[in-house]
Amino acid sequence: MKIEKLIEQIKKKKSFLCVGLDVDLDKIPEHLKEFDDPIFEFNKAIIEATQSYTVAYKPNIAFYEAYGIKGWKSLEKTQDYLNKNYPEIFTIADAKRGDIGNTSTRYAKAFLEEMNFDSITIAPYMGKDSVEPFLAFKNKHAILLALTSNEGASDFQFLEHQNQSLFEEVIQTSQNWKNSERLMYVVGATKASYFQKIRAIAPHHFLLVPGVGAQGGSIKEVCEFGLTKDIGLLINSSRGIIYASNQLDFAEKATLKAKELQQQMATYF
Amino acid sequence: MKIEKLIEQIKKKKSFLCVGLDVDLDKIPEHLKEFDDPIFEFNKAIIEATQSYTVAYKPNIAFYEAYGIKGWKSLEKTQDYLNKNYPEIFTIADAKRGDIGNTSTRYAKAFLEEMNFDSITIAPYMGKDSVEPFLAFKNKHAILLALTSNEGASDFQFLEHQNQSLFEEVIQTSQNWKNSERLMYVVGATKASYFQKIRAIAPHHFLLVPGVGAQGGSIKEVCEFGLTKDIGLLINSSRGIIYASNQLDFAEKATLKAKELQQQMATYF
Repeated sequence: MKIEKLIEQIKKKKSFLCVGLDVDLDKIPEHLKEFDDPIFEFNKAIIEATQSYTVAYKPNIAFYEAYGIKGWKSLEKTQDYLNKNYPEIFTIADAKRGDIGNTSTRYAKAFLEEMNFDSITIAPYMGKDSVEPFLAFKNKHAILLALTSNEGASDFQFLEHQNQSLFEEVIQTSQNWKNSERLMYVVGATKASYFQKIRAIAPHHFLLVPGVGAQGGSIKEVCEFGLTKDIGLLINSSRGIIYASNQLDFAEKATLKAKELQQQMATYF
Repeated sequence: MKIEKLIEQIKKKKSFLCVGLDVDLDKIPEHLKEFDDPIFEFNKAIIEATQSYTVAYKPNIAFYEAYGIKGWKSLEKTQDYLNKNYPEIFTIADAKRGDIGNTSTRYAKAFLEEMNFDSITIAPYMGKDSVEPFLAFKNKHAILLALTSNEGASDFQFLEHQNQSLFEEVIQTSQNWKNSERLMYVVGATKASYFQKIRAIAPHHFLLVPGVGAQGGSIKEVCEFGLTKDIGLLINSSRGIIYASNQLDFAEKATLKAKELQQQMATYF
C-alpha cells in the first residue's frame, strides 16, 4: 500500500487505530470452538466488528506459529479475507524477523509477496544488510524495532554511545539505508516522554505504538509529541479490544472498545 | 538434550561440526524435484551423508517459511526424522526470534516443545523478558545473537558504551538472567580476533559459529581462542556442504566436504 493511501484512510476514518490479532485459543469464546477453524472465525468476527474504526490490523505471527501448520492456515485465511474485503486497510505482519541478506530476502518474500502483507516488523540487531531486503518492495514497509514497550527494553536499548541511546542510533543510522522512506519504527507508548527525542531524529516517519491499554500507555501522552501533520502514528491495541469479552457478545464489546479509542483519536483531527 | 550428551557426542565423533539445512529449491539437484516433498528428500539424503561427521543440524527457518505451509511440513518431517533416527544429534532451529514475554513463550513452545528442537537462536534487542521464556525449558538451550558474521554487524554490535561493545554487553548482561546456564551465543567466524575478548566474559558457554567457508572464516583462527576444555564450539557450515554438488553425486560430495571439516577438527582432540 502506498503511504498516501494509508494517510487517506486515516483522515477519512479519523482514526489511527491498529488492532492486534493475537489470538489465543484459551481466551476466545467457547461457542467458536465448534468451528473447523476457530481462530479464523474469531478474526473474521473481530474484523467485521472493528473495521469502521480501525486503519490497520496486526497479527502477531507467534500466536499462529504456536499452532503449527493449522495456525499458518488460519493466518493465511485471515490475511486473504482482509485483502479481499478490506484492501484499503493496512496490514502488519508482526514477525520481528531479521537475518543475513539472503535469508532476510526469503522472509520478505514470504510475508510481503506470498501473503501480501503491507508491512512487517523487523529486529535491527544485525544491521543494514539484514533490513534492506525488506525495503526492496515498492509500496511495502519495514517497521524497525526502536524502543519497545516491554521491561527488557532497558537492558540494551538505552545504552549510550556518544550521548545517544541505542534506540536513537537505530533510528538515525537506518535513515541512511536504501529505500529508507519505506521505514517505520516501533516505539512503545510506555515510554511516551521519548517521543520528542524521536521526532527530532525522525520527523516524518510513521511510528507503530504498542503498549496502550493493557501495558499502561496513554494516547494523550503519545499524541502530544508523536503526531505529525499526516498523523504519523499507528496506535495498537490488542487484548483490550479482542478480549473485551469472552462471551457471545465478544464482537459487540470489541466494537465498543475500538469506537472508544477511535473517538479519543478523532479529537486530534 | 543435556549439555553433557552433546559433549559426549563431540568427543566420540571428534567433531564439532554443525550442518546448516538451508534448503533452496533453486539449488537442489533436478532429479529430486520429482518427489512429493523434494526439500525433505534432500534433507534426508544430506543427513544420511553427513551424520557420522556432524554433531548438530541447523535448519534456517526462513528457508522453510518462504514456501508457506508446504515448507513447514518439510521442516516438521525433517525434524521428526532427526528425532527418530538420530536423537543423539543436537538440533538448532535457526529462527532468530524474540518478542515480549507472552509472545516469546509461544515461540518457545512451538520450537522447543511441539517440534522438539534442542535449541533456538534468539535476537537480544528486546532484552531479558524476551529471552527468559526460551530458557525455561529443562535440557533446552537458547542461542543468543552476540556478534554476527554479516556486514551489517558493524552497524550496532560494535557501538561502545563505557569501553564495552554492544555484543560484549549482550553476553555479559545475559549471564545474569534466569537459567543463563542454558544460554549459548552466536559469534561469527569472520570476526575471529574477538574470540579472546568473548572467552574472557563467557569462558564456558558454547558458541555457535557461522561464517566458516562461504563467508570466509577459518576453523584454525576460531579454535585458537574459542576452544574450551569441553570444546565449547559448534562450527556451522551450510552451503559449502549441502551444495557441494547439484548433480546426482550431491550426497557423496556432501560427505567429502563434511569429512574434510571433521578431519580439521579432529586435530584439536
